[in-house]
Amino acid sequence: MRVRYRQGADELLAAYPNYVAQNPEEWKGRWHERFGNQNPIHIEIGTGKGQFITEMAKAHPEINYIGVEMQVSVVSMALDRLVEANISNLQLLHVDGSALTNYFADNEVDQIYLNFSDPWPKTRHEKRRLTFKTFLATDEQILKPNGEIHFKTDNQGLFEYSLASFSQYGMIIQKVWLDLHHSDYEGNIMTEYEEKFSSRGQRIYRVEARFQDKTKK
Amino acid sequence: MRVRYRQGADELLAAYPNYVAQNPEEWKGRWHERFGNQNPIHIEIGTGKGQFITEMAKAHPEINYIGVEMQVSVVSMALDRLVEANISNLQLLHVDGSALTNYFADNEVDQIYLNFSDPWPKTRHEKRRLTFKTFLATDEQILKPNGEIHFKTDNQGLFEYSLASFSQYGMIIQKVWLDLHHSDYEGNIMTEYEEKFSSRGQRIYRVEARFQDKTKK
Ligand SMILES: C[S@@+](CC[C@H](N)C(=O)[O-])C[C@H]1O[C@@H](n2cnc3c(N)ncnc32)[C@H](O)[C@@H]1O
Ligand SMILES: C[S@@+](CC[C@H](N)C(=O)[O-])C[C@H]1O[C@@H](n2cnc3c(N)ncnc32)[C@H](O)[C@@H]1O
Repeated sequence: MRVRYRQGADELLAAYPNYVAQNPEEWKGRWHERFGNQNPIHIEIGTGKGQFITEMAKAHPEINYIGVEMQVSVVSMALDRLVEANISNLQLLHVDGSALTNYFADNEVDQIYLNFSDPWPKTRHEKRRLTFKTFLATDEQILKPNGEIHFKTDNQGLFEYSLASFSQYGMIIQKVWLDLHHSDYEGNIMTEYEEKFSSRGQRIYRVEARFQDKTKK
Repeated sequence: MRVRYRQGADELLAAYPNYVAQNPEEWKGRWHERFGNQNPIHIEIGTGKGQFITEMAKAHPEINYIGVEMQVSVVSMALDRLVEANISNLQLLHVDGSALTNYFADNEVDQIYLNFSDPWPKTRHEKRRLTFKTFLATDEQILKPNGEIHFKTDNQGLFEYSLASFSQYGMIIQKVWLDLHHSDYEGNIMTEYEEKFSSRGQRIYRVEARFQDKTKK
């Protein structure tokens, strides 16, 4: 997502330290403490303007959510939404998804969402895709055993690639939707990109994949 | 595929013992002998009227093909085509794909094709799908280690199911095509069903999946 730099974005983040951790590495292994409960932790990597994660947090108060987004102007827009929602089970994390082991201890996360990740269609950019094996290794490390990635996209090439990448990494494909909006899937919460692409008649793809038990490897 | 019984179908098969083994269990472990060479053996399960397997055999004389089809009238139509093609690297096998261990020794087969398999959309018929785990276990047994299944279909539900079924069985998804006819895949040979459905504008799905090395399990 290309966004123009938003004046005052950094200051906005700094004004809400309860929503956006200022020194996030200090919370590594301590997110339950920050949320003040032992509920499961679900994170979204590349959360964009935050519609999905905010609506998920409203719909599932028994789960703690963390939206990870590396562009400050984009985080600031998600923050606008979070301030308005005024909920305690959602945090935003302004960091790069490739470095999540700096911010989460092993097994600290229960589930990961990837939604409409940047497709990086050129083969030479494969390493930048959030479903490339190096990202999966990071995800596996911070996820609890058998943790799952739930991934949605409209991008056919990225979806084809990701199914094979998950499987070749050793993950199990649990369930696949090749046309989510014309399926029996219930309780779907749309992202900004999902609204845009589906309104143009694009199919939405979805997959749930899980890591195999690390101890079994 | 529902076909009317074709008068004389049984007699036609009996008239071509070189193309359709009369007592196929006698060839278990001896198919290379029957073909008269050591070339790899590729089989198609549910071969229908035989367009795919015959064209594959013509295009790849260095591979031995066997088309497996359980309906006698359908085999007889594939036989018409084989007689006309007059090639020595294709055999037809009039048996049920669930019983292939009666006709092939362990590791005797190099690759398996499934094309437009009957979808059996009702959950209670899951066991009849050719990508159900019991069929995969049979396929794994007769395939050499790391053997592959190449599967094409127009049926969205069966494709979604099969990706998960392959993965949950422990197979690796190597490559996925979500719209084969608008992809860079080269050398595609169409089946009868593929021609019919693609001409109606239906997408064709394809996947290549391989079994993991049995010794590693
Ligand atoms: C195409 S947008 C999709 C946003 C949102 N998930 C949606 O579905 O509407 C992708 C977002 O991922 C963010 N992003 C890409 N790579 C990232 C990374 N390595 N770490 C964190 N965020 C990333 C981008 O900044 C962008 O905001
Ligand atoms: C829908 S047709 C597809 C035919 C062909 N592969 C095509 O793509 O045009 C499925 C075929 O599989 C055959 N078939 C179904 N189950 C089978 C089994 N267990 N063993 C052998 N053949 C089977 C059916 O008789 C039918 O001819």
